[in-house]
Amino acid sequence: MNIAIIGSGALGLYYGARLQQAGENVHFLLRRDYQAISRNGLTVHSCDGDFHLQQVQGYRCADEMPKADLVIVGLKTFANQHLEQLITPLLDEDTAILTLQNGLGNEELLAEHFGASRVLGGVAFICSNRGKPGEVHHLSQGGIRLGEFSAGLTPRAENIAAMFNRAKVPCQGVKDLKKIRWEKLVWNIPFNGMCALTGKTTDLLLAHPPTRALIGDLMDEVVAGANAQDLSSPIDAKAFSAHMIELTEGMGAYHPSMMLDRLQGRPLELEAIYAIPLRQAAARGVELTRIAMLYSMLDVTEN
Amino acid sequence: MNIAIIGSGALGLYYGARLQQAGENVHFLLRRDYQAISRNGLTVHSCDGDFHLQQVQGYRCADEMPKADLVIVGLKTFANQHLEQLITPLLDEDTAILTLQNGLGNEELLAEHFGASRVLGGVAFICSNRGKPGEVHHLSQGGIRLGEFSAGLTPRAENIAAMFNRAKVPCQGVKDLKKIRWEKLVWNIPFNGMCALTGKTTDLLLAHPPTRALIGDLMDEVVAGANAQDLSSPIDAKAFSAHMIELTEGMGAYHPSMMLDRLQGRPLELEAIYAIPLRQAAARGVELTRIAMLYSMLDVTEN
Repeated sequence: MNIAIIGSGALGLYYGARLQQAGENVHFLLRRDYQAISRNGLTVHSCDGDFHLQQVQGYRCADEMPKADLVIVGLKTFANQHLEQLITPLLDEDTAILTLQNGLGNEELLAEHFGASRVLGGVAFICSNRGKPGEVHHLSQGGIRLGEFSAGLTPRAENIAAMFNRAKVPCQGVKDLKKIRWEKLVWNIPFNGMCALTGKTTDLLLAHPPTRALIGDLMDEVVAGANAQDLSSPIDAKAFSAHMIELTEGMGAYHPSMMLDRLQGRPLELEAIYAIPLRQAAARGVELTRIAMLYSMLDVTEN
Repeated sequence: MNIAIIGSGALGLYYGARLQQAGENVHFLLRRDYQAISRNGLTVHSCDGDFHLQQVQGYRCADEMPKADLVIVGLKTFANQHLEQLITPLLDEDTAILTLQNGLGNEELLAEHFGASRVLGGVAFICSNRGKPGEVHHLSQGGIRLGEFSAGLTPRAENIAAMFNRAKVPCQGVKDLKKIRWEKLVWNIPFNGMCALTGKTTDLLLAHPPTRALIGDLMDEVVAGANAQDLSSPIDAKAFSAHMIELTEGMGAYHPSMMLDRLQGRPLELEAIYAIPLRQAAARGVELTRIAMLYSMLDVTEN
């Protein structure tokens, strides 16, 4: 399959590399890593075993890239205003677009620009970060769940999931994209914001009983917001939160992406991870007190 | 009156200087400013007019200080474990102790060590900070309300209030010390913690509508906690909060003391300003959700 990776941060580089390793024809839109990858290829330091790709098809500009069967979007959501310009040159009649970005609102934006029928969304549960130019670190986890934006589970979604599975990325196609988006928020909303605001890694927040309790309260609020959204079946707050906590305890001193964004002076993905979920909950009459408080304090630090 | 100032930060230096200027016999326990003040005296840069005291009675050690009629405590509450040692040498039979420290629990601690009958508490509403050694800046406000810890309004409290008034410090003696302590928390709880956590000054938090709303919600929670404490009369949440907001808007880009503590690498006064008020509210069955959340995030940053 002819695949374009738009947004070659840790996530885009890792999944693109896995797909190329499995024999797919992958094209990366690169910025920071262009020179290093052009010269020396791409190295993946993975908890599942390191590997190196010597020949990588990298581009500085989307206009130079070939048409794709599948565009995978890994761009930070604060750069979403560039999506139309970056993706338009890649589209053939049947090109599908899969966004693996954080939070809510990304599928809607892509559907607005390119038509709902092209759009799929996926949720990646992966601990990864960028290393030196030309290197990416895959620390733990790595699975993806994905689904259609506008239809149920289609052969197209099944095919993309199968392709990821062949590439050593555990992947599951699902019927209810909205549900998996909200499930991911159960992790993202407490950990991303609290780590960014306090400057403390996930393990420290879990080791301190009051913040551990707060993480649980925030997770309960996310589930309350989620379960007001007509999901195919409700999320079980207690079981799902316990699962997220357990996974996080296995991640050690993890720096969530928003904490890294803050430490590295980038904007924070507040719209996708906080503002839109809060609005969607409010639209169903659900007030998320602690989430709103966390959001307002993160937001003021961006001004 | 023979007065000992224990804790010569911005607050202790300012009020001590005013009292000396008015003719009281003031003795300062000094640490950072000892050398500068011994050599050059103490300069007060005040919004009400600058003044300089050439001869200042400064001491490095409480044991060298004379007995006092009144001990004024301006120590940071995170250093309260030193109070017994610092104050014991100053006590005559009738020495009164007035704590102007932040938050709750200070009078109780002094009463435990020295007997309840000695103890008065006061709430200073003042914008001040330390400058170079030997200088203190009084930016705005400056009034004090004070009262007895264990009795109603006594001649002793009235006399101390009158002394402050003679020294150009607007001061009022009150019957209900507990009430003015909680009233001050209506300001301290939102602004100290939010400014310390976000790194933003009071004006920026008030200019951003979501944090302005959050400040209001936090103030409402403080009042709910206060009004469960058998005060002589309840605090009017709406009127009092509006008054606090209005005062704060007049303070410009103010750095609350807890924000300065954080910026200067000192501990935060979390026990007095958050933990004890939360416990006292919980003891009356009042849960303060947002305050607990703010406290837990501040607390984890201290570990």
